Amino acid sequence: MTQARRSGSDLTEAIMRTTLELGQELGYAKLSIEGIAAQAGVGKHTVYRRWPSKGALLLDSLLSLNGSDLDYPDTGDVIADLRTQIYGAVDLLARNPLGPLFQALVGEAQRDPGVATALNERFIAPQADRTVARLRAAQDKGQLSPGFDLDLAMALLSGPLYFRLLIAQEPVTHAYVDRVLDALFTGMGPRA
Amino acid sequence: MTQARRSGSDLTEAIMRTTLELGQELGYAKLSIEGIAAQAGVGKHTVYRRWPSKGALLLDSLLSLNGSDLDYPDTGDVIADLRTQIYGAVDLLARNPLGPLFQALVGEAQRDPGVATALNERFIAPQADRTVARLRAAQDKGQLSPGFDLDLAMALLSGPLYFRLLIAQEPVTHAYVDRVLDALFTGMGPRA
Repeated sequence: MTQARRSGSDLTEAIMRTTLELGQELGYAKLSIEGIAAQAGVGKHTVYRRWPSKGALLLDSLLSLNGSDLDYPDTGDVIADLRTQIYGAVDLLARNPLGPLFQALVGEAQRDPGVATALNERFIAPQADRTVARLRAAQDKGQLSPGFDLDLAMALLSGPLYFRLLIAQEPVTHAYVDRVLDALFTGMGPRA
Repeated sequence: MTQARRSGSDLTEAIMRTTLELGQELGYAKLSIEGIAAQAGVGKHTVYRRWPSKGALLLDSLLSLNGSDLDYPDTGDVIADLRTQIYGAVDLLARNPLGPLFQALVGEAQRDPGVATALNERFIAPQADRTVARLRAAQDKGQLSPGFDLDLAMALLSGPLYFRLLIAQEPVTHAYVDRVLDALFTGMGPRA
């Protein structure tokens, strides 16, 4: 009865670690709650008590790796800070097995509204809040267009990256991030 | 033997129409090639001869509705023309059952590389070509920033819309399109 000797948080960590290991080995499609439970040495009800679905478990497992890596620096230079933060997110996604698993998770969110809600509440909304806070500070200092629509910030900054990852299915590189930031700050319109 | 009396293109059309009808009725998850074949009165091998997967068949069925709706007008006003074209795409997606089925298809593309490739080759690339051509004409007339990176156009214009549809899972409205176009044309940076 190893299970009885493990604390709740040890168990949770072991299950999430197993999820990422098996996810890397098998890929998302072949990953199952039963397989994860067996590998982690727990009963599948122990997993289901914590997570309602494979997608929810994978989301938490991916977020457990994320930590505070995605916090914004504030060096006073908003473009440099956005670049640093986005590079961090891109580097995290480039690390195996995160990229393919995250991509699979977004795919799952299209079929499972619970996964979509969890993805938004646990990952996207906190990231959007931090982004808006950093941009608001920059706007207050005159480093941003005074009329810039802060509520669009996440969609404008990360939309082109998700487009590349999910639709074009090409790698999101630092060079690509630079091009997106340049284009967004300059704007498409001709300078008066 | 109704099948023997139908021409190839009649059959193709009947199968695609059935795919959309059943897709609307059942949703993507419960849609199957077997079910479509039975409903269309053909053998499943007849379907598989034309389409390798449910995703590929759905993509073609959705594209068959699209027609030339998504061509760009050229009234001389590039922002108005982009708005018209993007409104058209958004209206198409708002029509049942296209939105949910398109969303499911993009989800499927995260699991099936064949669907991802087909989506890009059949839908995204032609749309990108038309977008770049329209923007290049505007750039030549001085209506766009001379340095604007045309290769980013699709990602910048449609990325925020895909973000809203696939990640935030909120409706893409005309008002939202207007805000995105305004922000992209103005740019995030302060005016000098």
